[in-house]
Amino acid sequence: MPLSDTGEISLEELQLAARNHGMPLEALRWPVTPPGLHYLLIHYDVPLVDPASWRLEVGGLVEQPLSLTLDDLRSRPAAEHAVTMECAGNGRARLTPRPISQPWLHEAVGTAVWGGTPLVGLLEEAGLEPGAVEVVFTGLDRGIEGGEEQAYQRSLGLHDALMPEVLLAWQMNGAPLLPQHGFPLRLVVPGWYGMTSVKWLASIEVVHQPFRGYQMTAAYRYRDQEDDEGEPVSRIQPRSLMAPPGIPDFFTRARTVQLGPVELEGRAWSGCAPVAGVEVSADGETWHEARLERDVEGRWAWCRWTFRWDPPAPGEYVLACRARDEAGNVQPDDAPWNLGGYASNSVQRVPVTVA
Amino acid sequence: MPLSDTGEISLEELQLAARNHGMPLEALRWPVTPPGLHYLLIHYDVPLVDPASWRLEVGGLVEQPLSLTLDDLRSRPAAEHAVTMECAGNGRARLTPRPISQPWLHEAVGTAVWGGTPLVGLLEEAGLEPGAVEVVFTGLDRGIEGGEEQAYQRSLGLHDALMPEVLLAWQMNGAPLLPQHGFPLRLVVPGWYGMTSVKWLASIEVVHQPFRGYQMTAAYRYRDQEDDEGEPVSRIQPRSLMAPPGIPDFFTRARTVQLGPVELEGRAWSGCAPVAGVEVSADGETWHEARLERDVEGRWAWCRWTFRWDPPAPGEYVLACRARDEAGNVQPDDAPWNLGGYASNSVQRVPVTVA
Repeated sequence: MPLSDTGEISLEELQLAARNHGMPLEALRWPVTPPGLHYLLIHYDVPLVDPASWRLEVGGLVEQPLSLTLDDLRSRPAAEHAVTMECAGNGRARLTPRPISQPWLHEAVGTAVWGGTPLVGLLEEAGLEPGAVEVVFTGLDRGIEGGEEQAYQRSLGLHDALMPEVLLAWQMNGAPLLPQHGFPLRLVVPGWYGMTSVKWLASIEVVHQPFRGYQMTAAYRYRDQEDDEGEPVSRIQPRSLMAPPGIPDFFTRARTVQLGPVELEGRAWSGCAPVAGVEVSADGETWHEARLERDVEGRWAWCRWTFRWDPPAPGEYVLACRARDEAGNVQPDDAPWNLGGYASNSVQRVPVTVA
Repeated sequence: MPLSDTGEISLEELQLAARNHGMPLEALRWPVTPPGLHYLLIHYDVPLVDPASWRLEVGGLVEQPLSLTLDDLRSRPAAEHAVTMECAGNGRARLTPRPISQPWLHEAVGTAVWGGTPLVGLLEEAGLEPGAVEVVFTGLDRGIEGGEEQAYQRSLGLHDALMPEVLLAWQMNGAPLLPQHGFPLRLVVPGWYGMTSVKWLASIEVVHQPFRGYQMTAAYRYRDQEDDEGEPVSRIQPRSLMAPPGIPDFFTRARTVQLGPVELEGRAWSGCAPVAGVEVSADGETWHEARLERDVEGRWAWCRWTFRWDPPAPGEYVLACRARDEAGNVQPDDAPWNLGGYASNSVQRVPVTVA
């Protein structure tokens, strides 16, 4: 991925930002993100799919290949999970040097209630043959990336593919999937960065060796230099974000808060383990424990945090929040840099003027 | 508005682009824009509104001030209009020098079916008093703009406010308004740029002189220099856009099309008069009439256009389309520059590689 040392954004990056929108941070106030505010990353184009002719093909190393309509899928056991999904590139545009790709600041996140059927049931029905090691998911979206024409494809190792929470989802928040979220069917892998949750699913293939597709070997790896093999990006690292308090300036988004107590609020999540706590600071040195509230059901959704802040005097402050999870992962002040700008979960800082 | 002579985008502009998303141009294939793909411009923050305590206040120069709940409004005569809405700043980021604000390229547009009650009925019920000249609409969104703390406010002259198509809308595409589109109630002024359709409506006030608020006198005026008084921005100028054919490169969005006939398609609209025609060019010199299809009901929605293009040989082409309306307005090759970058409806050019 090319790098930029300037704070200026290229026209190509702007083109991506205009298509692939984030979640405005005031939407952290909603437990489940309203449709249209959930972040979106679409590698190629949103395909226009005719649900009548659409089929999901299940094949490869299986005893019984399947070709399923949406109604066939709907007749299978149903499951629903509230899932906080985040783009692996969230935070990338704040890095120096800046990896040149979709220029996310903080806002590539959202929570939805996904409804569908567990993948494990479908794989059991098809019957895995000996020698199966991975499952490859292919979407209907086609494009060129790194000079290579491709459909969007990602794989999961067998152990991960059989996790009971992995869904083939046809519903988002009780309604059919929106076109941009993968209509008619998508994969949802709770706890993993969004690149794994393949949209517009066309086929599932069980294979006997690790899949070497572009999105597995070229993209979505932690590497410091182009010729590193690197480590695959997988689970979401802990992050907390604050709904910026007070009122914004239209252009700079700078915040002004009235003197007096203010309830700060935000959300925190981790794909590695449940959130153990969130701390808040108004001076960058002293940290105070926020109050946690699990207001969305289940293990895979963010929790809400609140903290009553009483600024001592008018002036300039920099608010910050940081999350930790039950596996001992702590959101770092400065996340380690990598070439793709992945998992860049440095502590968010929100400058405010108290007036 | 400050100007930039470089093609590079500032961090502040990127912050706005990450919040205020456009409609990915492949969504031109849908007659009514799916929720979440319709463009959004939010000057301040999306407010979190409790519909139980919310009221619409109607006052000023009226015989009978009103304070209405959502149920009160719903008991009034219902109306529905399919409306193509566009941001007045659409196209701004392609200008040189570039007005520094929300950096729209082409995609600040969308079509929705808005449902509510005609404003004219409510104004008749309240009873206009002599001397009424304008109606001021105030939203619940607050912020700072041009150094001035304000709620978002716009006015309409009496003649425009009484147009029968102007709606107080509580529905979008048959569902309650999404928070980001103005829940619980917004104004919808068909044919006008989006700044007029005030969201999160809190009050309607009839006044005896032209309203001098920031969004009327400082913003949204056609002017060439800061000290011009300028002309107010109002109706949408004709524009047509093409859904880029073929497949995209992830980063550059450059398009590759297979040799052979391809059906080009897009949409065209004008707030001034019905669309009279769309022409398509593949060489920038010869223009061919496209086929028009009015596939969304009513006067205020875009129409679809198609054109079968058969590229003579592999190579590089620049596709273009231009609309004209029944009032004789023609989409220009290069729209006149203005300080705010408003109504910048220059012909879209789509480079494609035929391979």
